[in-house]
Amino acid sequence: MMMNFVDRVLNAPKPYFPVWNLLDTDGYKITMLYYIWKYYRDVKVVFELINRDKHIPVAEVVDEWELRAALNHMLDLRLTRTEMTLINGTNVYHQRMFPDEFITFLANFRLGPYELSREGNQYHLRFPADWPYASMWEIYAMAIVMDLYFFSLERRMSRSELTEVYARAVVRHYDELRAIKANPNIMLIEGGTRRRHNYDWHKFTLEAGREILGQQLTGTSNLRLAFKYDMEWKGTSGHELQMVTNALVDDPKEKIAMQYKVCAEWQSLYGPGLRVMLPDTFMSDQFFRNAPDDLLRDWAASRQDSGDPFKYGDEIVIPEYTKRGIDPCSKIIIFSDGNKAKIMDEIERHFHGRGISRFLQGTFFTNNFGGLHPNPDACVPGLAPLTWKEVYKPFSLVCKVVEASGRPCVKLSDNPAKATGPKKAVEESLAVFGADHRVLQEVLV
Amino acid sequence: MMMNFVDRVLNAPKPYFPVWNLLDTDGYKITMLYYIWKYYRDVKVVFELINRDKHIPVAEVVDEWELRAALNHMLDLRLTRTEMTLINGTNVYHQRMFPDEFITFLANFRLGPYELSREGNQYHLRFPADWPYASMWEIYAMAIVMDLYFFSLERRMSRSELTEVYARAVVRHYDELRAIKANPNIMLIEGGTRRRHNYDWHKFTLEAGREILGQQLTGTSNLRLAFKYDMEWKGTSGHELQMVTNALVDDPKEKIAMQYKVCAEWQSLYGPGLRVMLPDTFMSDQFFRNAPDDLLRDWAASRQDSGDPFKYGDEIVIPEYTKRGIDPCSKIIIFSDGNKAKIMDEIERHFHGRGISRFLQGTFFTNNFGGLHPNPDACVPGLAPLTWKEVYKPFSLVCKVVEASGRPCVKLSDNPAKATGPKKAVEESLAVFGADHRVLQEVLV
Repeated sequence: MMMNFVDRVLNAPKPYFPVWNLLDTDGYKITMLYYIWKYYRDVKVVFELINRDKHIPVAEVVDEWELRAALNHMLDLRLTRTEMTLINGTNVYHQRMFPDEFITFLANFRLGPYELSREGNQYHLRFPADWPYASMWEIYAMAIVMDLYFFSLERRMSRSELTEVYARAVVRHYDELRAIKANPNIMLIEGGTRRRHNYDWHKFTLEAGREILGQQLTGTSNLRLAFKYDMEWKGTSGHELQMVTNALVDDPKEKIAMQYKVCAEWQSLYGPGLRVMLPDTFMSDQFFRNAPDDLLRDWAASRQDSGDPFKYGDEIVIPEYTKRGIDPCSKIIIFSDGNKAKIMDEIERHFHGRGISRFLQGTFFTNNFGGLHPNPDACVPGLAPLTWKEVYKPFSLVCKVVEASGRPCVKLSDNPAKATGPKKAVEESLAVFGADHRVLQEVLV
Repeated sequence: MMMNFVDRVLNAPKPYFPVWNLLDTDGYKITMLYYIWKYYRDVKVVFELINRDKHIPVAEVVDEWELRAALNHMLDLRLTRTEMTLINGTNVYHQRMFPDEFITFLANFRLGPYELSREGNQYHLRFPADWPYASMWEIYAMAIVMDLYFFSLERRMSRSELTEVYARAVVRHYDELRAIKANPNIMLIEGGTRRRHNYDWHKFTLEAGREILGQQLTGTSNLRLAFKYDMEWKGTSGHELQMVTNALVDDPKEKIAMQYKVCAEWQSLYGPGLRVMLPDTFMSDQFFRNAPDDLLRDWAASRQDSGDPFKYGDEIVIPEYTKRGIDPCSKIIIFSDGNKAKIMDEIERHFHGRGISRFLQGTFFTNNFGGLHPNPDACVPGLAPLTWKEVYKPFSLVCKVVEASGRPCVKLSDNPAKATGPKKAVEESLAVFGADHRVLQEVLV
């Protein structure tokens, strides 16, 4: 099995295609696509791939020619008949999810264009299109760049180095799974498609996870793998919904109200299982404080994606539910920010009996390769003076909407290091929403 | 590729499982299941596996222990989450096909019991259960027995014999496909699941068919392979609907009317694409003669499954449509009885411009192995004095309903050699429906 991962690198064709299937994405891109198509299909947006870690010289590692080949390949893809049947038949929350008109739209769907240029040792990769056609690029673009980055580095390794790296990665994955298993109250969703090591490794981590974790692994966010392994697919929604809609209005009061209009529109499309707030786009504190009673009462869950998870529960969510007369123990918090077994265990124990905690594990599930090279201080061939330790690790790659109808899009987040948007727009946004409760933290992935 | 077929036999485990998936069946079993579940779910029936060719000593070739293992394996199967999603999402005829209540029934579906005994050199295999649970056995039981039969014979061959047999079968399949291709008006559905050589061979024949025939291969009847190869699944309905419902009524007039009541019930469930008459259960001549105008007008097609295909068109279908003022060129005839390229070409040319002919090819697509053994006159090890020529060929295996609510079920067919039912019941049925237009023919498969 490990030899397969090694031979896979040594025998790979060039160009190498990290993604070759439109279902190979997070399911939430499809639920968001329906929302976007329904309410905002004509809004022109720009998505942009952003490497937050400038020490990682992506453009020196990944061939531009090979990256273009992988991106061009995506432009040719359509959803197949069987894939359409699967989407059409999906009713995980006990109702038919998508109307025929949207199914027809999906059957004809193809991705919008991309724009790629090189700036120093980074790529500048943008997706300007009507929102539905740009949005769908998010996961594909990230998975392609992350996979090509690792793959291009691994091509510089010897068979022996590869064998050791993959053996260590297998051991680390099992260790992590057993550590999760040790606390049977940790309920986990695998959500690591976007920054995975590669598709075959993703499959391996999920198979091992099913075997070790059993019922503790409640699903995967990846549509293709959910169907392949007969698992439930799980998804919430992403920041883009708040970021785009907020850029469309000017008045501060409208901006605050828009956060909840999005929720109301979403609720008109989806049942209870998909009603998960994502409050940190403009900071969770104000989101909860300003939220209408019925939103807090009717929605089952919120997702914590930045800032301090303990403060999120102790100082924002539990007090606000309590103040409104809602039992926090009837509500779920999905923690999705850089999870590892240790922090999940601490969070689960901390909130045990005071709220329902659930976890989404991404990069540390599907790409836990940091520090695995056996000669960490050796220079990487062709990249000297950079060493393996400095470059052979997952990094903080995101694909975010940066512009909507010609206006800048902003995400404040509960951690200023995770904020996105031009400085002036971020400051204007802070003036609207306030700046309390943001905690500067190191961003791991 | 050919070596795979050979090694597959030489390295096979014992017991060998020919079918291990509930979707590995003809789609018409699911459309019929919905009909049966909707209208007749409590009718107690008995299905029976019948080998019409008593020269084929099935019970001497196939181990009872291995047959039981394969049948027992089916009892454990359920439709998986992904398979349910596929069925739920199926809308090939541009409408959602199945209501939620039936989907829930399917999600909990498991096969009814079987009864197996040996009588001389034949097996007696029966499925007594409520109609839905017995009906679904049809394809699985046939595919299991046919596959185990060939597999058990091939275990007696040498590597060299197997290599030659499979190479010849590959060549024959391509020859047949090219002969079909030579007449681009032949439009074909693959429908050979029930008597296929084995699952892997079935996949090969379908892949080759797609490559050679292109658009001339319009679909497959097999649900699992349709989804696997992203093909359209095609299906009509089987004789059981007429046979069971007819056994439930006594009065001759009611028996005649019941044929059309079934059609009306079917029409209430399915759109135009699935409205295909199967008139030969009680002989096509009387079916067309007695049919109400709106049935002939509204239903797009009929299926010819026994008797003389030329007389079916020339003396029954075309005259009756014409007499009712319906243009025969607007109607489809699906010829499904023992098709090979030569006869399909003759039929297509014969009816060209006078009606629309379509073809369903079964056994000669997926199990065209008759006469392929390189030493036809040698005795089969363990079966002397029987020779390869006598036993190594597909044979006329059917799985038919024989009893409904304690009454015998009858099929007259347009060829007396294909009639099923006890002699007395057949005679009574002939008295009701008449005996004209039946032509005794050799039954090939």
